[in-house]
Amino acid sequence: MDDLLAQVRASRPRAIARLITLVENSASAMETAVSTLYSFTGQAHVIGITGPPGSGKSTLVNELAKGFRRQGAPVGIIAVDPSSPFSGGALLGDRVRMRDLAGDSGIFIRSMASRGSLGGLAEATAAVVKILDAAGFPVILVETVGAGQAEVDIANAAHTTLVIEAPGMGDDIQTFKAGILEIADILVVNKADRPGADRTVKALEMMLHMGEGTVVRHHGRVLTAAGDQPATHGVWQVPVQATIATQGAGVPELIAAIQRHKAHLQATSDWLAREKERSWREMEHLLRANLLRRLQVTVAPEKREALVTAVAAREMDPYTAVAELLAQLSDTTGRAL
Amino acid sequence: MDDLLAQVRASRPRAIARLITLVENSASAMETAVSTLYSFTGQAHVIGITGPPGSGKSTLVNELAKGFRRQGAPVGIIAVDPSSPFSGGALLGDRVRMRDLAGDSGIFIRSMASRGSLGGLAEATAAVVKILDAAGFPVILVETVGAGQAEVDIANAAHTTLVIEAPGMGDDIQTFKAGILEIADILVVNKADRPGADRTVKALEMMLHMGEGTVVRHHGRVLTAAGDQPATHGVWQVPVQATIATQGAGVPELIAAIQRHKAHLQATSDWLAREKERSWREMEHLLRANLLRRLQVTVAPEKREALVTAVAAREMDPYTAVAELLAQLSDTTGRAL
Repeated sequence: MDDLLAQVRASRPRAIARLITLVENSASAMETAVSTLYSFTGQAHVIGITGPPGSGKSTLVNELAKGFRRQGAPVGIIAVDPSSPFSGGALLGDRVRMRDLAGDSGIFIRSMASRGSLGGLAEATAAVVKILDAAGFPVILVETVGAGQAEVDIANAAHTTLVIEAPGMGDDIQTFKAGILEIADILVVNKADRPGADRTVKALEMMLHMGEGTVVRHHGRVLTAAGDQPATHGVWQVPVQATIATQGAGVPELIAAIQRHKAHLQATSDWLAREKERSWREMEHLLRANLLRRLQVTVAPEKREALVTAVAAREMDPYTAVAELLAQLSDTTGRAL
Repeated sequence: MDDLLAQVRASRPRAIARLITLVENSASAMETAVSTLYSFTGQAHVIGITGPPGSGKSTLVNELAKGFRRQGAPVGIIAVDPSSPFSGGALLGDRVRMRDLAGDSGIFIRSMASRGSLGGLAEATAAVVKILDAAGFPVILVETVGAGQAEVDIANAAHTTLVIEAPGMGDDIQTFKAGILEIADILVVNKADRPGADRTVKALEMMLHMGEGTVVRHHGRVLTAAGDQPATHGVWQVPVQATIATQGAGVPELIAAIQRHKAHLQATSDWLAREKERSWREMEHLLRANLLRRLQVTVAPEKREALVTAVAAREMDPYTAVAELLAQLSDTTGRAL
């Protein structure tokens, strides 16, 4: 393991790939890797990219990767598919991507699919981000398919979150947009050569400025500064950028916006605020995992089974059952978890 | 509260609505309501309905509700929108639904939007299911918008899970289907009057019988019975049902399939197995919430803040920080959680 971690630090692609596989399959490998590499992380700019199917995310991620590469930076790409909770396997966009980016040793690509629990996938993705960070990738693109909770998790893990839309995605997109405002640092209208693109850009800009004031992201929270005079620093005005990823149009402007957002985070206290939020979320997750592990060790399987069966049969409510589990813990250990 | 709970048991709509609002806004109200009502639950057949935007879910849910009503059963409908994580507000389909089902006192409808955490939404939805169950609704339809983790959570909470597709939803649907096979108890191809509907039905049937054997759901797990002789009981063959919800076509057949699935669960040990899985998931959630609450009470905010800041600044790795938090817990309490 020590040798493998040293090779990862030296940015050897095979070692990186092998470590990721280890980390995906073993909690103890994850602990060793993350705790050893942790002090070398914190250098990368983590960029989340999300949006509904059909918005052209994969193509846009490719173009972003090529754009960052032109500036010389090695780029890590993590393609996460939470809509595939049980089956592994490559994402739809992967074949295109591989053909397009193959042969560039400055690009590392990894696909990840959930294995039944989003906690698991979010944790594994966070570990892979750290591995690529410690391996010296200054730009890490994390792409997810689909909508909903996965987006929130991306927003939590990334410094800069891009939400991609395409014109004419149907009426249902309206319900979807309500939650997006609070997640996006940058809104992208891709496929801008399609009819209705201008209307989509305008609609998004209107939603961003809806109500009395201006919706801004600040310390990872949403503030509506109704009538406030926004300070020139500390407030990020979410831009709407039109792109045609298949032609590369708008991509340099999008990269410039991403870099402006990074500069904004660093100039304000937002970078540290986001790192602290992420750190606490990670610690919370480890605390929970720790509790469940100790429970497994301490409470006899038959006792647990009896309580679960009683709850399932409505003989006992879940609160009472949990109180009994916790009492069992104190009885047998005599000390805190 | 006692009076309110009694009125809920008497199935008074206003009391039900008021209790749900209380439960959504207060953890202690949720504990009181769930633990008091719990022994009256376990009677309802909980049916999850999911699928991508544009598949016509809301209309189909309406038709299902009307179909069950024709058989005399009161129907509860919970419309969950996890894609709207911060903003509340009604679902897109609600206006249609309200107009269509208004005036039938045997139908209770409630919309729910996430407030930033899926754990929170899943927990709140589970509590509302219990409230409607204890209020005497024998059929509860839980509809979610979107794809991904929300589907898995529905599958976890429901006895019978319907996955809705529509013909011609684009190529991205292929990536989406991989995870669906394991979640669906019944696959529905809605908008079956659209071109390509037959092809979609055939494609889904092929995917269900892909590989050497047959994919079946059994005890909430996926088994691939390659070459096995499936027993006539204990094995559920996932059917594919075509519907045109706007015309009600295929809906009686779909209701029959739902009822066959219920009979199957009850004839095998699968009903209890699903209840036990759900019970354990609920207990796990309560355990975690309990730990975090005790942590908040026991560890000084400055200590927590110092650890989080050290992790954010890469001065300490998260595993070490969590070990320190837990040590702090033992020191101050001297007893187990």
